Amino acid sequence: MKTPRSVEKLANEFGKLPGIGQKTASRLTFYLLKKSDVDVAGLADAVAGLKAGVRFCSICHNMAEDDPCATCTDTTRDRSVICVVEEPLDAQALDATGGYKGLYHVLGGALSPLDGIGPEQLNIESLVGRVQGDQVREVILATNASLEGETTASHVAGRLKPLGVKITRLGRGLPVGGDLEYADEITITRALEGRSEF
Amino acid sequence: MKTPRSVEKLANEFGKLPGIGQKTASRLTFYLLKKSDVDVAGLADAVAGLKAGVRFCSICHNMAEDDPCATCTDTTRDRSVICVVEEPLDAQALDATGGYKGLYHVLGGALSPLDGIGPEQLNIESLVGRVQGDQVREVILATNASLEGETTASHVAGRLKPLGVKITRLGRGLPVGGDLEYADEITITRALEGRSEF
Repeated sequence: MKTPRSVEKLANEFGKLPGIGQKTASRLTFYLLKKSDVDVAGLADAVAGLKAGVRFCSICHNMAEDDPCATCTDTTRDRSVICVVEEPLDAQALDATGGYKGLYHVLGGALSPLDGIGPEQLNIESLVGRVQGDQVREVILATNASLEGETTASHVAGRLKPLGVKITRLGRGLPVGGDLEYADEITITRALEGRSEF
Repeated sequence: MKTPRSVEKLANEFGKLPGIGQKTASRLTFYLLKKSDVDVAGLADAVAGLKAGVRFCSICHNMAEDDPCATCTDTTRDRSVICVVEEPLDAQALDATGGYKGLYHVLGGALSPLDGIGPEQLNIESLVGRVQGDQVREVILATNASLEGETTASHVAGRLKPLGVKITRLGRGLPVGGDLEYADEITITRALEGRSEF
């Protein structure tokens, strides 16, 4: 049985997306085939128009509609704190808490020598520049709690230390709702180290 | 923090797809944002061109590039057997086994009164026509092993019975690699009913 070329082509494209296997790609394609022309065109237009509507802020390197971005030009934000994250989605996750009102700096990834990502591939130089030039009091290193994230945090901390700025990192420990019994050893060790008075 | 409109729009469109939640939609969008323009355009074109390249065969109602489809016009296939399935992907799954060389008939879904899908919404009338007019010896009911699938199979069997054609259905029992201990009661009951001599 021959699958129509256009179906095969789209299933193939969907299959390139992360976390979408061959079966899911076929199912998504077939789902769209049953949708109205307007719905399908809506998705096609959204994909085609994605990049045209996005700039990367030349200050914080976050995705935005303008350059500099609305966060960097927001005068109500605390300009003395910079939160360093790996990716734009990390900055969004932090901002969604509503608990942080400082500025951001997006590194654009984490150090990963095996993937050819060294310090030069990340936006570290511009961070050093911001800390030197601005009235920055504290830099919060909010990289992922993975090996790459920790390595990146260490490297960035090493670069910023000589500037005399206060460097902090996100708390480590049990996630809210987490079960002590099922937590891994390193998480429990970090939680013990990071214990606070009751 | 304001997410660029084009990012929000695409994440929204991805989120409409089955099995893709809000987080996955954001991650897919962000993944595309880091891809080259050519890659993004490839996906956009594939979505936009999906429907233009697909017809539905007027005989078997399967998706195809031509009407009638290559399967229906293939003279090397056994024209005395019709395998009835719910959706085009089911026909593909059967054909991928290489073990079936007859024709297909795609119903276009399964009976589901709550969703407003009655016998008139499915391609049942045309199946009756094919069985009446052609040299059909056997009809294999290969609907899903779900409640809707079983109901649909019963209904179709009732419509075909008067025509004197042989009506069969796919075997029920333990899937290959299946563990008796973890199989549900109905599956075990069906496996017992469908037991064969060793």
